[in-house]
Amino acid sequence: MTPRLIGVDWGTTSLRCYLVDGTGVILARQSSDQGILSVPPGEFGNVLANHTQAWRSAHPGLPIVLSGMIGSRQGWHEIAYVRCPARLADLADAIHRIDYPSLPAVMLVPGLDTRNKDDVPDVMRGEETQIFGAMMQRNLTDGTFVLPGTHSKWAHVHDGAITAFATYMTGEVFAALCGHTILGRLMTGSDSCHDGVSFLRGVCASTGEGGPGALLNHIFSARTLGLFDMIPGNGVRSYLSGLLIGSEIRSGHKTSFGASPIRIIGNPELGSRYAEAARALELDVEIVDGDCVAYGHLALADQAQL
Amino acid sequence: MTPRLIGVDWGTTSLRCYLVDGTGVILARQSSDQGILSVPPGEFGNVLANHTQAWRSAHPGLPIVLSGMIGSRQGWHEIAYVRCPARLADLADAIHRIDYPSLPAVMLVPGLDTRNKDDVPDVMRGEETQIFGAMMQRNLTDGTFVLPGTHSKWAHVHDGAITAFATYMTGEVFAALCGHTILGRLMTGSDSCHDGVSFLRGVCASTGEGGPGALLNHIFSARTLGLFDMIPGNGVRSYLSGLLIGSEIRSGHKTSFGASPIRIIGNPELGSRYAEAARALELDVEIVDGDCVAYGHLALADQAQL
Repeated sequence: MTPRLIGVDWGTTSLRCYLVDGTGVILARQSSDQGILSVPPGEFGNVLANHTQAWRSAHPGLPIVLSGMIGSRQGWHEIAYVRCPARLADLADAIHRIDYPSLPAVMLVPGLDTRNKDDVPDVMRGEETQIFGAMMQRNLTDGTFVLPGTHSKWAHVHDGAITAFATYMTGEVFAALCGHTILGRLMTGSDSCHDGVSFLRGVCASTGEGGPGALLNHIFSARTLGLFDMIPGNGVRSYLSGLLIGSEIRSGHKTSFGASPIRIIGNPELGSRYAEAARALELDVEIVDGDCVAYGHLALADQAQL
Repeated sequence: MTPRLIGVDWGTTSLRCYLVDGTGVILARQSSDQGILSVPPGEFGNVLANHTQAWRSAHPGLPIVLSGMIGSRQGWHEIAYVRCPARLADLADAIHRIDYPSLPAVMLVPGLDTRNKDDVPDVMRGEETQIFGAMMQRNLTDGTFVLPGTHSKWAHVHDGAITAFATYMTGEVFAALCGHTILGRLMTGSDSCHDGVSFLRGVCASTGEGGPGALLNHIFSARTLGLFDMIPGNGVRSYLSGLLIGSEIRSGHKTSFGASPIRIIGNPELGSRYAEAARALELDVEIVDGDCVAYGHLALADQAQL
């Protein structure tokens, strides 16, 4: 129960701070919506100092480990990506130290980049720490990890290294389709209302056939099925969500080298939605709590001898 | 050169009126942005009367044939879809007559609906008249027609009947991605600026492999290639356009039963963009001028003995 470090997952729209002990257990936590996009340049140190003041007073000198978009061009300091395949030691070697008045050692974890078979780059910042945390927590060295979200990540781990990953813009495309296309017109009910039947119908309507362009056709079914009263108005949103998530899972699974179970890391609500869809597609899944990020911060601190 | 009818293509965002002779030649035309969404309920007759007043004064009693979204629930009068396979005679039989003070016979052309192999409906309103017009104009009874746009249509014609079609939301998805996702952030240059090299690069980056969900991954390349300076900022928009149009064409072509050439009907700029993409994919294409809609109005007037 002795604090070992302060772990911070600082993303685009949120800031999550954890007081972590030497076994990866979270002793205290606090979060805010002060994501990097809401912090003026030059103010990152102040915001971090304010959020961690009580913990630092009670436990002076704890190292602070930051992961996420805080290491991007829009963040506190841009730190180069580490190229896949990447082990924990590669990340720890590339940690960047920031010296800031009134704060102890602030250590910035780099993100990862990879190239697909057509040499197209892909990137992540923050998810690598969650993945290594999940591996530490469960003593895993292999597997496929899915991190659902605005930009979902499918990452493959072999022999302790993240070997490759791919981003799916599922969450952001869903929001843009609901808010800014004709598909939103027939949607009734609140944004947060989930219709489980329509969601599963969308998952089952997704298909692995037809090539990528077929998605541009499939999503139109969210309009026509609504138009012909074949889906209730308050189910159209969930149907479209199921269609997109189902399409993502079918595509991602094809790249997973038959890994089983697929491990889903993330917020409980979206994670359970993904798990429901994956099970409907007869895939074996396991949900990993998002708190595993603290194990990632700890493993990096240990590895880097902070 | 004697006027035979007034043809009107009345869509969601535009109104196009044609004075047409007995051979399908357009003698005069006018268009406005008074699409159905900008016309208050009850005002459709007035708007039509105003737009056609000069022609009606000079040539009293000409029938007026309306096609497009004007026959939808949001239009003047909702008219039921005709189910595919549909011949010109099926459309003509289902034409709906509106009597409006001060106007001669106003005839509303129905749209079409179809069901795909999973019994999911698809719909069109207005494109059927363009397709029959193109068939009349060129004396065709078979082929695949593509109508690019906000909602692209791929329609298959066999033995004089439109047998099936599919909608691709390519144009609307493109606009939503540019305007309302992170992909727009790296785009520089004006919306109308076309970078031919980046466009073709996007077309070539599209693929038929990977299943529909892969599109959610592929579009992220418009961000990463920009981020790594592998595409210039003023080319990101054209790259994404090429990626989406290329994906649509690969998918649509698979459903075309080997039809060659693929006939593209539509506005000259977008039509030539599609033709460029299709040729890059080694498909034989032919561009049909959008004025063919007037042949469609004429063929329907003749068939319905107006």
